[in-house]
Amino acid sequence: MQHTIGFIHDLAVIMLIAGIVTVLFHRFKQPVVLGYIAAGVIIGPHTPPFELIGDETSIHTLGELGVVFLMFSLGLEFSLRKLVKVGATAIVAALSEIVLMLWLGYEIGRAFGWKTMDALFLGAMLAISSTTIIVKALDELGLKRERFAQTVFGILIVEDILAIAMIALLSGIASSGSVDAGSVVITLARLMLFMVVSLVLGLLLVPRLLQYVARFKRDEMLLITVLGLCFGFCLIVVKLDYSIALGAFLIGAIMAESRPLHSIERVVAPLRDMFSAIFFVTIGLMLDLRALVDHAGPIAVITVAVVFGKILTCGLGTFVAGCDGRTSMRVGMSVAQIGEFSFIIAALGVSLHVTSDFLYPVAVAVSALTTLFTPYLIRAADPLTQRIANILPRPVVSLFSNYSQWLSNLQPTGDNAAVFRVVRNIVLQIAINLALVAAIFIGVSYFAIRIDDWVNARVPDERIQNVLWWSAALAISMPFLVAIYRKLKSLALLLAEISVRPAVTGRFTTSIRYALAELVPAIAMFGVFLWVVALSGRILPPVDLLIAVLACAALLLVVLWRWFVRVHARLQIVLRETFDHNQDHG
Amino acid sequence: MQHTIGFIHDLAVIMLIAGIVTVLFHRFKQPVVLGYIAAGVIIGPHTPPFELIGDETSIHTLGELGVVFLMFSLGLEFSLRKLVKVGATAIVAALSEIVLMLWLGYEIGRAFGWKTMDALFLGAMLAISSTTIIVKALDELGLKRERFAQTVFGILIVEDILAIAMIALLSGIASSGSVDAGSVVITLARLMLFMVVSLVLGLLLVPRLLQYVARFKRDEMLLITVLGLCFGFCLIVVKLDYSIALGAFLIGAIMAESRPLHSIERVVAPLRDMFSAIFFVTIGLMLDLRALVDHAGPIAVITVAVVFGKILTCGLGTFVAGCDGRTSMRVGMSVAQIGEFSFIIAALGVSLHVTSDFLYPVAVAVSALTTLFTPYLIRAADPLTQRIANILPRPVVSLFSNYSQWLSNLQPTGDNAAVFRVVRNIVLQIAINLALVAAIFIGVSYFAIRIDDWVNARVPDERIQNVLWWSAALAISMPFLVAIYRKLKSLALLLAEISVRPAVTGRFTTSIRYALAELVPAIAMFGVFLWVVALSGRILPPVDLLIAVLACAALLLVVLWRWFVRVHARLQIVLRETFDHNQDHG
Repeated sequence: MQHTIGFIHDLAVIMLIAGIVTVLFHRFKQPVVLGYIAAGVIIGPHTPPFELIGDETSIHTLGELGVVFLMFSLGLEFSLRKLVKVGATAIVAALSEIVLMLWLGYEIGRAFGWKTMDALFLGAMLAISSTTIIVKALDELGLKRERFAQTVFGILIVEDILAIAMIALLSGIASSGSVDAGSVVITLARLMLFMVVSLVLGLLLVPRLLQYVARFKRDEMLLITVLGLCFGFCLIVVKLDYSIALGAFLIGAIMAESRPLHSIERVVAPLRDMFSAIFFVTIGLMLDLRALVDHAGPIAVITVAVVFGKILTCGLGTFVAGCDGRTSMRVGMSVAQIGEFSFIIAALGVSLHVTSDFLYPVAVAVSALTTLFTPYLIRAADPLTQRIANILPRPVVSLFSNYSQWLSNLQPTGDNAAVFRVVRNIVLQIAINLALVAAIFIGVSYFAIRIDDWVNARVPDERIQNVLWWSAALAISMPFLVAIYRKLKSLALLLAEISVRPAVTGRFTTSIRYALAELVPAIAMFGVFLWVVALSGRILPPVDLLIAVLACAALLLVVLWRWFVRVHARLQIVLRETFDHNQDHG
Repeated sequence: MQHTIGFIHDLAVIMLIAGIVTVLFHRFKQPVVLGYIAAGVIIGPHTPPFELIGDETSIHTLGELGVVFLMFSLGLEFSLRKLVKVGATAIVAALSEIVLMLWLGYEIGRAFGWKTMDALFLGAMLAISSTTIIVKALDELGLKRERFAQTVFGILIVEDILAIAMIALLSGIASSGSVDAGSVVITLARLMLFMVVSLVLGLLLVPRLLQYVARFKRDEMLLITVLGLCFGFCLIVVKLDYSIALGAFLIGAIMAESRPLHSIERVVAPLRDMFSAIFFVTIGLMLDLRALVDHAGPIAVITVAVVFGKILTCGLGTFVAGCDGRTSMRVGMSVAQIGEFSFIIAALGVSLHVTSDFLYPVAVAVSALTTLFTPYLIRAADPLTQRIANILPRPVVSLFSNYSQWLSNLQPTGDNAAVFRVVRNIVLQIAINLALVAAIFIGVSYFAIRIDDWVNARVPDERIQNVLWWSAALAISMPFLVAIYRKLKSLALLLAEISVRPAVTGRFTTSIRYALAELVPAIAMFGVFLWVVALSGRILPPVDLLIAVLACAALLLVVLWRWFVRVHARLQIVLRETFDHNQDHG
């Protein structure tokens, strides 16, 4: 009871002060998110008269829920199709931003005479922008549905993915003192695999389930189901050591393809508003005005570096990837801040005992300051672009437009474009099926290790155990393997059609095409087999038994070929229906 | 971060299992609230395989928020006018239920051979029904807007008020061993005073504020403001040692009179659904199936006693107060359970070290069982009434209908009814103004003690301090005192008109009426003065100075009489407008 009263007290203080401050901010046409942060500063422990809340831990926990709901709502409003559209731009811009900011941060740290590790962690802290801040700011300014915003969201997703690799890299460097590129690649590969598998499985199951629950027409049950799926998925993601924000975004994107999308958005909005308000207040809570004075020099320099560095690096990356100057400027000015990820990196350095104590308060101060600037920067983007365009000398302007021209000429057109699209589609489908096969084998291995004791008691011979596990994995993968083979074959046929020209090969054309169309898939499938063997690791049976299993599998294939094709086709139809429905809505 | 993951884990488990179980319950047409409780039992520490959640404290805290949101929503849907309508019935029924259940519980405890304190606390545990359970069950069955439901809500409010007195009584008995009736009366008087003052002040301020915020047309700001007011008011209520449920209900009832009521209901509904689901799950969490076995005897007896005892005592009370048989049966069957208040009483006994350890698990088990029955009992009320009506012998039925007839004859009719209504209104207005005057003097005394040091440094003479404080309180009270005098005068005039008949008093009629109309208010105002003197306690100046202050006040009155009348009239208009608006909507 006492705990509850303290909790209500904290909530009351936060909501009352946040309410008053945000009404004032709104009255004077300032962004509401700044009002929340200002409320946090007023409430916080570092500002007189005294700390107004009792239990900061509980409030920070609720703030984390705010991140979950913000990212989940972002996912709900996101469309996977749009992501594919901005994919290339996002990757180029995010890579440009991360690499250059990492370098810039490192150099700044060295220039201040900090030790190598502090400088390195500073670089990492500056690399990634704050998704939550940007989403909130764009939402408030009414720009969330603009085209440049889609590019920004694409960049943020790529950054989130790369951030996970960066944490792996930093942990490795901190503990061993050297860079282990291999582990980073494996981390990234695992992450991509996880994302593909959860998207495919999620899209198969979640929209159907939600539609079933929505039929009862009771908001309460829909809400509880949505929350259960959201938190449940976040939990899996966190257990796999990925960020909770990524998980919330993914499950949101999956639910975005479900029919009761509008009801879900309606019931989740108040929860997002309440918890995200708490989240932004917690940012203000952490802002120590005295730390601003103590480390005024570094904070000022780093803040300037973040703002200008990000505008330049990310804006440049966006421009290089083919966007026009106005869009590039808007993208660059949207991402010019650091946020929650920087706190994670700073906390990582502290927990590994490799960074100095001052790094965390500096990170918080820079984050708070750059967050303060964000809404103003976004609003300033258009006027600034106009002014720059006016003062730039003519040759520079024409150089820029020539670059855009040249880049758009690089895009395939006409027949080539059609072939390119078909090939890309087939390659994408093969990749997804490969990912599912990999997930099945890795999943079965993981499961096999988990119930080792139980199995040992029943099947003592480990060789037989492996045969059983491996056969099971192979059997489940069969529809996907069959699909891979069929896609490979059509890809080979298409490529043979294009590359083997009758003018060169004469009367052998048909046979050469035929040979290619048969040979290439066969060789590729052998590659797939080797890959599966490499993946199955502990559950791989010895060679003699493996051959026996493969023989059985071949027999099964001959008998059940058509059935496997049908199973895969049905799964594909389900997925496509989910998307088509959404297209009707969008 | 670790804490957050544990928290997300618990939320995920609760929402997932609650989601699945409630969908199943809904599918098989069982009440959803039972689904939540069943989910809690599955998740709970007492059911195999193991406890599925990590941090029960946090979850219970969120469950308490569920109580806040449930009661707040109840308040939002409640109308003060309707409460006045069912007031008399509710008081009779609630008193009948509480007194008889207290006695029944005590007798059951003694019959089991428990010690006196255990038996007394058992009685208290059985006295009060569970508001949250009833509200949820009636909502789910779609009966919340029926007339009998309004009576039930009235009973629950009266019970909540009496429960607070009961806690004061039990604490007194436990620590001193004797009953202190005086402290109970004071507790009740303080509570009534608090409710009147907060309703008047709340109705003056809150609807205006909400209307101002709602004009921005931003759900987020409205939600934050509503939550700030709700938690803030709950905090005040809790600090004054009243129950948080009462506070949430009161502020909800105040907000129900504001213009953006529908927007408020819309944004609060998802929060209520999420947190109330957690609340009902926590009830299931506490249910230990082994305790059911260990104390099977007492639990069974007490459960039967609660169900039949409450149906009889509360149903009878409702019938005696003038409702028909069907309504009485429905009311009785709605309140046939115990809930959160019983846990509070049980916990009080444990914390005062006066009750045995087994009382708490017994309370939880009985509460869970009776909660399980509630929806079925409510559904069974109408068929049961029908069956009883069929099997009752004719004389009994005619006795019942004669009673109803006789009761309705007691109601004043015609001219008398009109006079009765006018007199009641005037008395009510005088009572409210008296309460406000009392609140001003008590508030000033409280404030004076708080800033004692500050004042001592500036005004060393305590007599002068008191003169200043008392004058301030008197000045603020002036409009209300003037209003009291004016109402008393019109009441006296009215009563003189009725009671002094020309047939008796002849030619003295006018002068006697005049004397009465002048004398009665003057005497009454002297009573008010004595009352104020009694209330002002520490800040009362010595007699000589008091007379001086009163002389000044009299002078002020003469000069500013019209102004005071106008101030009071304006406040009254504001209040009336708030209500009238609501009448348009309702």
